[in-house]
Amino acid sequence: MKVALAQQDYIIGDFEGNLTKHLKAIEQARKSGARLIVFPELSVCGYPPRDFLEFDDFIRQSEESLMLIAAQCKSIAAVVGAPIRNTSGKGKPLFNAALFLHQGKIKGIQRKSLLPNYDIFDEYRYFEPNREFGLVEYEGLRLALTVCEDLWNTEDNPLYVENPLQRLLALQPDLLINIAASPFHDNQPHIRHKVLIDNALRAKIPIIYVNHTGAQTELIFDGHSMVIDGQGRVCERLPFFTESIQIVDIQNLKPIDEIFNPDRISLIHDALVTGIQAYFEKLGLQKAILGLSGGIDSAVVLVLAVEALGNENVRAILLPSRYSSQHSVDDAIALAKNLDVNYDIISIENAFDAFESTLAPLFKDLPFDLTEENLQARIRAVLLMALSNKFGYILLNTSNKSEAAVGYGTLYGDMCGGLSVLGDVYKTDVYRLARFINHEKEIIPQNILFKAPSAELRPNQKDSDSLPEYHLLDPILFEYIENRKGPGEIINLGYSSDLVKRVLRLVNINEYKRHQTPPILRVSAKAFGSGRRMPIVGKYLA
Amino acid sequence: MKVALAQQDYIIGDFEGNLTKHLKAIEQARKSGARLIVFPELSVCGYPPRDFLEFDDFIRQSEESLMLIAAQCKSIAAVVGAPIRNTSGKGKPLFNAALFLHQGKIKGIQRKSLLPNYDIFDEYRYFEPNREFGLVEYEGLRLALTVCEDLWNTEDNPLYVENPLQRLLALQPDLLINIAASPFHDNQPHIRHKVLIDNALRAKIPIIYVNHTGAQTELIFDGHSMVIDGQGRVCERLPFFTESIQIVDIQNLKPIDEIFNPDRISLIHDALVTGIQAYFEKLGLQKAILGLSGGIDSAVVLVLAVEALGNENVRAILLPSRYSSQHSVDDAIALAKNLDVNYDIISIENAFDAFESTLAPLFKDLPFDLTEENLQARIRAVLLMALSNKFGYILLNTSNKSEAAVGYGTLYGDMCGGLSVLGDVYKTDVYRLARFINHEKEIIPQNILFKAPSAELRPNQKDSDSLPEYHLLDPILFEYIENRKGPGEIINLGYSSDLVKRVLRLVNINEYKRHQTPPILRVSAKAFGSGRRMPIVGKYLA
Repeated sequence: MKVALAQQDYIIGDFEGNLTKHLKAIEQARKSGARLIVFPELSVCGYPPRDFLEFDDFIRQSEESLMLIAAQCKSIAAVVGAPIRNTSGKGKPLFNAALFLHQGKIKGIQRKSLLPNYDIFDEYRYFEPNREFGLVEYEGLRLALTVCEDLWNTEDNPLYVENPLQRLLALQPDLLINIAASPFHDNQPHIRHKVLIDNALRAKIPIIYVNHTGAQTELIFDGHSMVIDGQGRVCERLPFFTESIQIVDIQNLKPIDEIFNPDRISLIHDALVTGIQAYFEKLGLQKAILGLSGGIDSAVVLVLAVEALGNENVRAILLPSRYSSQHSVDDAIALAKNLDVNYDIISIENAFDAFESTLAPLFKDLPFDLTEENLQARIRAVLLMALSNKFGYILLNTSNKSEAAVGYGTLYGDMCGGLSVLGDVYKTDVYRLARFINHEKEIIPQNILFKAPSAELRPNQKDSDSLPEYHLLDPILFEYIENRKGPGEIINLGYSSDLVKRVLRLVNINEYKRHQTPPILRVSAKAFGSGRRMPIVGKYLA
Repeated sequence: MKVALAQQDYIIGDFEGNLTKHLKAIEQARKSGARLIVFPELSVCGYPPRDFLEFDDFIRQSEESLMLIAAQCKSIAAVVGAPIRNTSGKGKPLFNAALFLHQGKIKGIQRKSLLPNYDIFDEYRYFEPNREFGLVEYEGLRLALTVCEDLWNTEDNPLYVENPLQRLLALQPDLLINIAASPFHDNQPHIRHKVLIDNALRAKIPIIYVNHTGAQTELIFDGHSMVIDGQGRVCERLPFFTESIQIVDIQNLKPIDEIFNPDRISLIHDALVTGIQAYFEKLGLQKAILGLSGGIDSAVVLVLAVEALGNENVRAILLPSRYSSQHSVDDAIALAKNLDVNYDIISIENAFDAFESTLAPLFKDLPFDLTEENLQARIRAVLLMALSNKFGYILLNTSNKSEAAVGYGTLYGDMCGGLSVLGDVYKTDVYRLARFINHEKEIIPQNILFKAPSAELRPNQKDSDSLPEYHLLDPILFEYIENRKGPGEIINLGYSSDLVKRVLRLVNINEYKRHQTPPILRVSAKAFGSGRRMPIVGKYLA
């Protein structure tokens, strides 16, 4: 039996557009001789619909779409994902379901059993977990349908009491189908690869795995759908970050000859480009603006934006002050020229003078301090937002994760923007990205990679005046943020006690800043944003 | 048996401070002859600890505190709330538990069964639901311990499959104890009152209910702990929004003679004052600043801030431009004088001119538009933040819920601040609050209540130029936001189809602005913030 894997990108709540996408794929699969086509989780409404799931009208529209898709499944069957109602009168009002469509109808339903409710996932907010299991018989095969997390209750991570795979295997299926919405992070392709192979080895039957691709604001989906045979060998692997429909003959699977070892920085690079692209496309916008400082963060963001949107759609603004070094301006111009990007130079001196004289009666002769540093950053933001408003650009934020973590940034200043491109990339990884970008030819001027990082908000300032060097800072942040280790545990890894306590305190007391920042493209297992929910006011390590 | 109800406010992760608070209350209760003292849910670590619960170090510190509290419970018993570990190796790593402490030890544990995971609640993110029930025997009484939501699976709202009350009643307890962290919203005291009485009537035994008071950033806790007898009569009611330790004799309960009907606007007023107070206190800060426009929103915020912090701790800044009317300046000054609050007048004209001339080479002769309106709002924010930075004030945001809903506000402009005071109060309720404030004498000048709302960002501007009148807008917003009704359902209520579609579209396309706003004091059942999670990019009603 030929099966089509439809790895697609949907717009949340765009029922018409998503419907069209399903119908075209079904038609294409049918013409190619496929007897079954498999779509990702919640394909009908897009993932994650979040609190739209609480609107009866949204569910009703999803149900209508579902019936229209079913109506087109006559000589071919389809597995799609959609929310369905819990009619039992007990528990949450919805189930997250895989639906088997055939003969113009819904012929089978398998509801999701394991509801991820950690990190960026909130599924228990909306859905009741399934407790009943069954198979779908089709073309002489017994199909076990599962939804994403249902295959993730692995032995090294028993998050759930229930084990859907065990329950389904007891029914003796011939084929396991998993429809997924598994967002990218830099280690996720490896983990997913292993989880799927482990499942196939346990089940001893083939697995068809279909994931979303594209991005939904901060969540990037890397696609990378797969077919694994009953011996745990990968037989088909769909591309990363790209829509693709592939057809496999499930009774005639052939293992791919491969070593699966994608480069981490290359994946992050592609994820970020995908994230920028999807954000603009789904908003129906084309043009981005950003402040180009001559430093490495804005340089990398500019390159990624040009890759995502084209050089004609990106505008760089240099915003020098009296504290900007000539090399910063020169480096920024050299980069803009390398990329053939329009740039303008707008001095912030006039505005800075105006604010200084306006505030003078209140500030009297108080010394220059953080206030004046923030002032410069905020004037830049006001200018960038004015250009954004006047010409319809989206401002790209250029802060990195290390800065965001320790609060080394100005709220309503350099923390502004519609989308944060590097907010989940530590500074040491920003350098790796820059070297990756330059690996064939020098796009980012070498000087930008080699000079000491500086905010240039006072004379001869360096980041290292206020912060530990990034090669010391980043590993401590990683232990605290990604690994959720406490101060004692981190100190035991060999870091200085004072440094660890200082860094953890900085992270905690700056929660209020991160609360007000743009959505951050997520490329790690623990990004700032909806996946990391911390009290803004508290005393633990503060 | 005398039982003490300890209605307290804790700081999240302040194990030392929270411990002291427990020990003092235990000592006070013991001296008053109480044999048992009851604290609220997760009293040991503070509520909600959010992702700190994922830190082993945090749990370890909580366990240490718990043992130190237990050690002080010798001649008196205590019920406290704390996270405890799930040692089964299956499911989430923690339980949310009520612990019965006596003879220096943990003598009983009842884990929470119903884990709220909706609106602002994320408990299933951390905790495994309990499936085992037991009673604690003490002083000849059989005590059934429950944690907050455990009593909320009422017949008109069966959110859960499990029913802990039924399970516990089968064990024939003499007394029901509920430890809670039930945040305030304007209807919550009534709902809670009814739920507790319904439970007592079903159980036919008395209920002791102990809630948090104070606030944790956006979440306000109204306290209002209660004792209900076995006939469903309220026998003790602790004050709203105030710490209090009350002692009742459980074998000798006497119903209060009362009609329970607190005024909604008065409750919202008290909640907002509590919210401001707790935010500053827990940060260890005293001083607030705000922009005083002469409009009603900033007027109400100023009054609330003065009530919360004292007039000596609040500074009002008037920031007029060429478009400000004289009456706005006069009204603002009159209000500041009524409240005896320091105020300054800072013209934004210099800065506005500087930006206009800086941007002129890029804007050329493009007409005045939203850009220049936003520019004024952003200049004001830069000035307020400069004062905040220089003098250590927290900037109070003065946006209301109606504006926040439809995006009638400038990101990085009037949407700035450390805390949003009115972001969960619709404009029509802001007027009600103003009248409530003025009910004894005129504090807010009448002119502020009667003039047409205006942002004064262009000549003769009125809010009603861009928005429907608030008495039309607010009910539509309420149906969409609070009641989660779709466009068809709202139109069916009698609103014009064009208006409804326009309003809902505005709400949805402005999600990106609300994503970057300060925490909003929550006083409704559906506030913007962590209780309302919507996609930033999507097409449903957009």
